[in-house]
Amino acid sequence: MIIDVKELYNNIDKYMGKEITLQGWIRNHRKQKELGFIDFSDGTCFQHVQVVYDDQLDDFDSITKYHVGSAIEVHGLVIQSPKEGQAFEIQTQKILLLGDCPEDYPLQPKKHSREFLREQAYLRPRANLFQAAFRVRSVAAYSIHKYFQERGYVYFQAPLLTASDCEGAGEMFHVTSFDLAHVPMKDGEVDYSKDMFDCPSSLTVSGQLEAETFALAYKKTYTFGPTFRAENSNTRVHANEFWMIEPEIAFCDLAGDMEIMEDMLKYVVSYVLEHCKDEMEFFDKFIESGLIQKLEKLVHSRFTRITHREAIEILQKADVKWEFEPKQGEDIAKEHEKYITEYFDGPVFITDWPKDIKAFYMKENEDGQTVAAVDLEVPGAGEIMGGSQREDCYEKLVKRMDDLGMDKQELYWYINLRKFGSCVHSGFGLGFERLLIYITGIDNIRDVIPYPRTPGNCDF
Amino acid sequence: MIIDVKELYNNIDKYMGKEITLQGWIRNHRKQKELGFIDFSDGTCFQHVQVVYDDQLDDFDSITKYHVGSAIEVHGLVIQSPKEGQAFEIQTQKILLLGDCPEDYPLQPKKHSREFLREQAYLRPRANLFQAAFRVRSVAAYSIHKYFQERGYVYFQAPLLTASDCEGAGEMFHVTSFDLAHVPMKDGEVDYSKDMFDCPSSLTVSGQLEAETFALAYKKTYTFGPTFRAENSNTRVHANEFWMIEPEIAFCDLAGDMEIMEDMLKYVVSYVLEHCKDEMEFFDKFIESGLIQKLEKLVHSRFTRITHREAIEILQKADVKWEFEPKQGEDIAKEHEKYITEYFDGPVFITDWPKDIKAFYMKENEDGQTVAAVDLEVPGAGEIMGGSQREDCYEKLVKRMDDLGMDKQELYWYINLRKFGSCVHSGFGLGFERLLIYITGIDNIRDVIPYPRTPGNCDF
Repeated sequence: MIIDVKELYNNIDKYMGKEITLQGWIRNHRKQKELGFIDFSDGTCFQHVQVVYDDQLDDFDSITKYHVGSAIEVHGLVIQSPKEGQAFEIQTQKILLLGDCPEDYPLQPKKHSREFLREQAYLRPRANLFQAAFRVRSVAAYSIHKYFQERGYVYFQAPLLTASDCEGAGEMFHVTSFDLAHVPMKDGEVDYSKDMFDCPSSLTVSGQLEAETFALAYKKTYTFGPTFRAENSNTRVHANEFWMIEPEIAFCDLAGDMEIMEDMLKYVVSYVLEHCKDEMEFFDKFIESGLIQKLEKLVHSRFTRITHREAIEILQKADVKWEFEPKQGEDIAKEHEKYITEYFDGPVFITDWPKDIKAFYMKENEDGQTVAAVDLEVPGAGEIMGGSQREDCYEKLVKRMDDLGMDKQELYWYINLRKFGSCVHSGFGLGFERLLIYITGIDNIRDVIPYPRTPGNCDF
Repeated sequence: MIIDVKELYNNIDKYMGKEITLQGWIRNHRKQKELGFIDFSDGTCFQHVQVVYDDQLDDFDSITKYHVGSAIEVHGLVIQSPKEGQAFEIQTQKILLLGDCPEDYPLQPKKHSREFLREQAYLRPRANLFQAAFRVRSVAAYSIHKYFQERGYVYFQAPLLTASDCEGAGEMFHVTSFDLAHVPMKDGEVDYSKDMFDCPSSLTVSGQLEAETFALAYKKTYTFGPTFRAENSNTRVHANEFWMIEPEIAFCDLAGDMEIMEDMLKYVVSYVLEHCKDEMEFFDKFIESGLIQKLEKLVHSRFTRITHREAIEILQKADVKWEFEPKQGEDIAKEHEKYITEYFDGPVFITDWPKDIKAFYMKENEDGQTVAAVDLEVPGAGEIMGGSQREDCYEKLVKRMDDLGMDKQELYWYINLRKFGSCVHSGFGLGFERLLIYITGIDNIRDVIPYPRTPGNCDF
């Protein structure tokens, strides 16, 4: 019977003493005179299997020559392992070579730099760090769907191609069916009537505005899809293509929004801790010492809620030589985020931000100076999510857009949501890769995306 | 206590006779002299609630004037309804107007054409047909994740920006950070060294090739993400942006692939039938008569497996005047698909296709003429999924690419998978919207995508 290694680990009592067949790859291979040891993985779980064979096999000599990286089929008996801390091993009856691997295979069992592995991105999921990272990515993605679906949210797959350029969050990539060497022009301008959509089109930077149309029809909705920024930023946290989660909830104010943000984050972190134990232990041991403790503390804490005004007051009273002086009405720097989370020794929601540094769609507070916006700051990572109550008053939204010189015609449908049965509603955004960086401790966004797109890199 | 309508329907015994509060929208409003009836929905389930109020309320007169589309808060008692077939109704104690709606609200309670509703795409999820369609979309999407995750597949989020133009499936959209009116040129060619990725980039048409790199690391993987075609096709089944599911499984041949295809399709259909009962009954009644029966039949059938050669023989023997004569070595037309599914009275896998009409990566059979490819034909929809065993032999893949004049340098990593521990592996592709068309009976792809992108249309 051919089984997955995961199935074997999950039901070792059932298989102990039984004959089984495994199919997978040689990750390492040590040979002695009369014995051979294959470190075997089929990728279905983080743990490998020790496959032991001896010179009683007719083809012992050829088996000893099987290279690291080869695909093999192992027939053998599951037995107790004499090695301490190892639940079992496979006593080989037969090994078939399914696919050879040459000796110049790039992933030899030794330490490789992250930079080298990025160049070998198509092979790196076979290496422990990435095997773990991308499984956590998969499990975390599923837990997000599970969280929202079990609570009655409708999954909204936002359009990625958009004719709108006023979503207000940075540079957008242009999309066209034109041959770039021969863009048709008319009267000195691009003749978009010849392009696919008869108008300029771009890649979306956010699905939030469209998600609001779903919230006002389904009450609870969430997006989970790719978004794009044409920013030439070469940092550890920026990529040109990344995934966002954007829930949107009708009849929900800022306080309710924060409850959902806190609950969802704890759920996802708990789910990963429970379902990726081996991967998380690996990260804790080799990537970020204390990682699991950090995450468990988050799950069991009650997040603090303070206003931006209070945060600035705390920062101003602090006995710290700041690089950027904290000031009322201004943004909060990285060093400030760090201080605040240490001050409260846990995650902190900072609410009611100065309106001039926040987006046009955020609900204006009664003071006329601040908006019902919130950032969640977590220890060790700073801002991880941001949300707001949305401006639900037609007149106020229109005035705000006019003040900012925005094109109202293009967003007529968004504005109309405030005319046709408007209601209090709120939402938030979570960058999926930011979350993964926080959960895994891996400090570079290039290493939590299978095939990252960053300036100068669109490989594979 | 504020509750969702879904919660109310799911636990009606618990709430019967109790005071509750609901927040949602007026879908219809009938007034009599001393009584008013509000058809109320909060979007958390397909079913509406009948809200009854009488002239004992102080503000009876103003309530009678609340318009269709308005957001309201209803405080009332859950009581047995005198109306037959209605489990309960709300006896109103208080109604608050949260957000008014003018009388020129486009979604008045009458029959609207699909074309009109497409123009009102930001409002149409409030109309029954689309309320149902996009909830089914959400539930179906979740069931796909659930199916694969519970079976140990790793979710692979394929990159959408790609420098590769040889994925071999039609026209691609170009992506650039250039101002299209001023594309930098050098020696008569576009100077891509000035573009974001230092090279031409496009939107992906498939994540399959990259998914194979994950299959050879995790054994089982699947994509579920957007894909794009820059095709100027104005049909009922084509869109420029759509979602694909592309599973890929190592150590799995074509027979195993078909088992997974059949099992997954039955799972998803069953899941939607079970979790979207009201929506499916609506479709069965108003969109496609016999829909539920069609789907239940699929779930309980065993799919037939025949070769392309056998299919052509059956077609040639048929007493039918074909528009396209069926021929060995050639493709199968729509009329043929229909005949075959009727002939076997159920879904049919057609395998082993002529290699010249299939993609370069498909495994060549021993006859040298056919490849280990499969199309699944279902009654009433024709081809719904396609898959293949992949060519796992390095030399054969290289030869096939050479024969087709393909650029091997660009896909070096794909070819190398056949060098570094190659193994038998297979996969398939499912267009998510094609599946939704089949499940809902809605016959136009524009009506199963919230904001469809088709030639000339990139609105919202």
